[in-house]
Amino acid sequence: MYSFKNDYSEGAHPNILESLVRTNEEQTSGYGEDAYTEEAKALIKKHIGREDVDIHFLVGGTQTNLTAISAFLRPHEAAIAAHSGHIAVHETGAIEATGHKVVTAYAEDGKLTACQIKELVAKHEDEHMVKPKLVYISDSTEVGTIYTKEELQAISDYCKKADLLLFVDGARLGSALMAKGNDVTLNDLARLTDAFYIGGTKNGALMGEALIIINNNLKKDFRYLIKQKGGLLAKGRIISIGFIELFKENLFFEIAAHANQMAEKLTKGIEAAGFEFLTTSSTNQIFPIFPNRVIECLRKNYDFSVWEKIDEDHTAIRLVTSWATKEECVIAFNKDLLAAK
Amino acid sequence: MYSFKNDYSEGAHPNILESLVRTNEEQTSGYGEDAYTEEAKALIKKHIGREDVDIHFLVGGTQTNLTAISAFLRPHEAAIAAHSGHIAVHETGAIEATGHKVVTAYAEDGKLTACQIKELVAKHEDEHMVKPKLVYISDSTEVGTIYTKEELQAISDYCKKADLLLFVDGARLGSALMAKGNDVTLNDLARLTDAFYIGGTKNGALMGEALIIINNNLKKDFRYLIKQKGGLLAKGRIISIGFIELFKENLFFEIAAHANQMAEKLTKGIEAAGFEFLTTSSTNQIFPIFPNRVIECLRKNYDFSVWEKIDEDHTAIRLVTSWATKEECVIAFNKDLLAAK
Amino acid sequence: MYSFKNDYSEGAHPNILESLVRTNEEQTSGYGEDAYTEEAKALIKKHIGREDVDIHFLVGGTQTNLTAISAFLRPHEAAIAAHSGHIAVHETGAIEATGHKVVTAYAEDGKLTACQIKELVAKHEDEHMVKPKLVYISDSTEVGTIYTKEELQAISDYCKKADLLLFVDGARLGSALMAKGNDVTLNDLARLTDAFYIGGTKNGALMGEALIIINNNLKKDFRYLIKQKGGLLAKGRIISIGFIELFKENLFFEIAAHANQMAEKLTKGIEAAGFEFLTTSSTNQIFPIFPNRVIECLRKNYDFSVWEKIDEDHTAIRLVTSWATKEECVIAFNKDLLAAK
Amino acid sequence: MYSFKNDYSEGAHPNILESLVRTNEEQTSGYGEDAYTEEAKALIKKHIGREDVDIHFLVGGTQTNLTAISAFLRPHEAAIAAHSGHIAVHETGAIEATGHKVVTAYAEDGKLTACQIKELVAKHEDEHMVKPKLVYISDSTEVGTIYTKEELQAISDYCKKADLLLFVDGARLGSALMAKGNDVTLNDLARLTDAFYIGGTKNGALMGEALIIINNNLKKDFRYLIKQKGGLLAKGRIISIGFIELFKENLFFEIAAHANQMAEKLTKGIEAAGFEFLTTSSTNQIFPIFPNRVIECLRKNYDFSVWEKIDEDHTAIRLVTSWATKEECVIAFNKDLLAAK
Repeated sequence: MYSFKNDYSEGAHPNILESLVRTNEEQTSGYGEDAYTEEAKALIKKHIGREDVDIHFLVGGTQTNLTAISAFLRPHEAAIAAHSGHIAVHETGAIEATGHKVVTAYAEDGKLTACQIKELVAKHEDEHMVKPKLVYISDSTEVGTIYTKEELQAISDYCKKADLLLFVDGARLGSALMAKGNDVTLNDLARLTDAFYIGGTKNGALMGEALIIINNNLKKDFRYLIKQKGGLLAKGRIISIGFIELFKENLFFEIAAHANQMAEKLTKGIEAAGFEFLTTSSTNQIFPIFPNRVIECLRKNYDFSVWEKIDEDHTAIRLVTSWATKEECVIAFNKDLLAAK
Repeated sequence: MYSFKNDYSEGAHPNILESLVRTNEEQTSGYGEDAYTEEAKALIKKHIGREDVDIHFLVGGTQTNLTAISAFLRPHEAAIAAHSGHIAVHETGAIEATGHKVVTAYAEDGKLTACQIKELVAKHEDEHMVKPKLVYISDSTEVGTIYTKEELQAISDYCKKADLLLFVDGARLGSALMAKGNDVTLNDLARLTDAFYIGGTKNGALMGEALIIINNNLKKDFRYLIKQKGGLLAKGRIISIGFIELFKENLFFEIAAHANQMAEKLTKGIEAAGFEFLTTSSTNQIFPIFPNRVIECLRKNYDFSVWEKIDEDHTAIRLVTSWATKEECVIAFNKDLLAAK
Repeated sequence: MYSFKNDYSEGAHPNILESLVRTNEEQTSGYGEDAYTEEAKALIKKHIGREDVDIHFLVGGTQTNLTAISAFLRPHEAAIAAHSGHIAVHETGAIEATGHKVVTAYAEDGKLTACQIKELVAKHEDEHMVKPKLVYISDSTEVGTIYTKEELQAISDYCKKADLLLFVDGARLGSALMAKGNDVTLNDLARLTDAFYIGGTKNGALMGEALIIINNNLKKDFRYLIKQKGGLLAKGRIISIGFIELFKENLFFEIAAHANQMAEKLTKGIEAAGFEFLTTSSTNQIFPIFPNRVIECLRKNYDFSVWEKIDEDHTAIRLVTSWATKEECVIAFNKDLLAAK
Repeated sequence: MYSFKNDYSEGAHPNILESLVRTNEEQTSGYGEDAYTEEAKALIKKHIGREDVDIHFLVGGTQTNLTAISAFLRPHEAAIAAHSGHIAVHETGAIEATGHKVVTAYAEDGKLTACQIKELVAKHEDEHMVKPKLVYISDSTEVGTIYTKEELQAISDYCKKADLLLFVDGARLGSALMAKGNDVTLNDLARLTDAFYIGGTKNGALMGEALIIINNNLKKDFRYLIKQKGGLLAKGRIISIGFIELFKENLFFEIAAHANQMAEKLTKGIEAAGFEFLTTSSTNQIFPIFPNRVIECLRKNYDFSVWEKIDEDHTAIRLVTSWATKEECVIAFNKDLLAAK
């Protein structure tokens, strides 16, 4: 049984574990006030090409979303998201639990457009409705798609014009940045957004997300918010050592590229077998549509998520690759698919 | 420079890192639905001697406190804590951020008594005041003291009588259970409380707390609450592998005993040097009172927290030992103290 | 200028003001613990035909919704509403501000169906999503429609089966109960729902809503929640005297009938003039579609809300009648409409 | 039976009811966007002597406190209050329910000092603790005392220096401003605070508090917050007509003076009878200490609150006077007291 269920099935990239073992006996300050955390921040800043940003390490994606969004908004302000956005669907109402409504627009490819955001804002007319204040987008999205620089620029321009904050969920940012067709860089994100994060959990780290706050108005007292929401890890270095390994050279990008290549290989095999996809993905999540009996066959040897019923006989599944995905398993999947067809 | 600043200065007990390395490439289900998590739960249940409890692993103490307490209470219900309780002082209002007031009683030794709880409840007369519903105690406490079985029994009896929930913060439970004078067991805790947790972060784990829910009324849907509050770790095994190592035999207890022994050795050295203590501790946190100039001398070679000003010339400091504390450093401290005197 | 903008443009029914004046110098207990409040509760219970319900008086609708819903739900539980439901759109995120997500289904006529509720529940699969727990419907709805007994029964049956709570926003319940085609009674509501409220603000009271809690599990400590959310009025009698006047005989129903009759007269005039409506309403809110130039004409003498753009040349407006609507103004409107046509 | 239990036992000053009756049939815009609300604001501004303040009318004190404080603070920020402050004790955790901790200092006379505030701030050292940001004081206080201009100035000066907001609960501000020994004016309050409110409920209005926001940073979007918290009254004029009557000339001050005079008369009678007081009050709340048997006697003819047990044989009670208190009842009380002695 091989799993394409997600990109957090395995532990961590071996370099990270090695570094954790090597430094295990060193004494460091708690709560992210240690030298490793400083080093990780410096390395990320270098990759972004900006010194004037604040960086915080948090344990996971939901935690980062809820901590940041509730820190950035006043009580009556709402977040705008795609209907499929992670905060809108898969975080058990974490944003609402901090008091804020998430208003959504239907986005077939998982991507919000500047135009949709404008329409949503226009609908919120007066104080009897929430005031949309923050735009939440994911890159790559929950359905594997990515934003182009032009799309991001348009959203960013509108946000500035309409006094909205732009926040990018980068849980799978590595895969987005290394995707075919991507023309966005970390530096672009820092230029176009108010805050974004670089996901470690889904790209080789043991765990952890690096939140980058660019907008000066959002920086103040942020550590208070992390602590209050339960996200200030006592042994901060567990996360920061991971980010050091990922960013001291280019490991973060290399392993994201590997994940994408494995997904591409799966895609080609699936296309070759004559099947179609729910979305056009160049990242590490793909959504092929199979006859139900093919899915039953594949289930014997592979683990994956069933995503969406298409019709009585067909269903879209989700296959996720990662830094750890083995090429031989991809090849085997494609072969088994042909056999099951 | 050697640090007695806290019990989370080093990484994790080597057994845990070894196990993480050994199992790193295995694919497991996410979010704590993996076999390691099942195994860890089974081992802990065996140590507790109870099968009828629910166990959940969370990343840290503040997160466990806020998730559990907000899950257990209705909006108008409050938690009762010692004035020095962690939730009352050092969690940036995490409980209040979930909507609940923390009402406190002054507890010189960090311990609430059944009598104090009764008095606090009596003060809350009607619907113009919050309704105290949950008693929060820490064992060991924030000032190193421990509860006796008799004290716990008295609190538990009153809680049952007054329809209050009893919740024990066990961030430093290992040290409490192995302390001289302790007569409380894990089984006692399961018998006397509605929920408690076993701290891993401060006793050798990379991180993680094991929350034990005994009261059936509190069990329902708890995973929803963990997810909503941002505490459902994608790679759940990171925590559960730690607890497997700690509980597959008796490592949890052995390393807690080591921490206590190191603290006791420090205590004896300090007493021999003629100094007194702020509290009577038999656990891994001690609070000696030193002349300020002695503290200045010690600072050159040791790191520790300044706890409380006693008078113009004297200050209490906090020394914390752990599973990783080196005996030679303890001996050196005592020697340096004599020299500084 | 005559206003059809809403049903709270005037003060209160004269009987209520008279009673307030007559009893003004009497001393009563505060916070709804006075004899008038007891009397009002007794009268409403008699009209409902049930003694085993709890009744609370709150100042307004948003307050009642947020207090009740947050009292009834645990943190991870969500409310289900029509996309046009008041809590989903027009309460500035009041429910979310208490921590709960509102999940919605599109309901063209403003009415949820048992089938839609079932579909929404089915979509919420696991602990990564909120758990729908309470169904919120308005009767009459925000677009003037009403639920039949059969529809309510179907919703109630499904709610019981699926362990959901049913809560009815009755801000305009008077108009619903007196509408042509209505076959629902107060007693039916008590039989089919877990809680509902009888709106006073929009049916002749100075202000106030009477919340009826039928489900015993929801009754406990409710006054704590009212107080905590800021809704426990010091001079409780201001509201209860209003409800006494409305329910000591049948004033509540009589003036609701008047409002409906005035709306019906407007409807007939509008139909006679050859115009259509956005929804089929038999209550005190109607939504005619007019050419924009007709609307401009009407604006000179009448105040009303612009509801929805239909096309470049046509717009739906909202006309609201009330206990205070003057028949001569209705006649004048219809005449002016013919002239403007 | 005559009640000295509170200052909201009766309805409203007759002028207010008359005005409500007189204007009852007029149609006005909802939600405080009517001409009466504008007029009331203009009148209050004139009395304050400032045009550059924002004024909002809310229904009650708890609602005003929770709406304002949660609007003014970020999630990690706390309010500072006297241990006896209304928000700290008698609002069922309303502030905490919006997410904010209330930190308190013991204030025997119900009054915080600049020095106490400074000490509380100093204790909050880092991001592991909440950040005190708003100082909440009541004038008059919950035990009948008042702040002098010098005391307010000292608090205000420290707040400005320490970047704290100063917020005054004026539920009984009328009584404070008319008290013997008072040297504070409405204009002083606007100069020294960031926001305060003028209580109508306890000084002759049917209900309602006028919140005055002076600090420009706190003004934005405030109506959204009122709506979200359930405090935007549909028939806004009910409150504003009350404030028009109170402030079109000097009724607000005259009736507060009457309440104080009645309390003073009671005080003189009690002193003449040889009894002492818990606090030194020059306002409409007094706290005499009586032998328990005297209290039993008085209970036969008078209603009042039992405040605090002094010793086995003595108890402090609370007597409250108001705009409606009848002099003959005060005289009777004093006479009955002498008899009971």
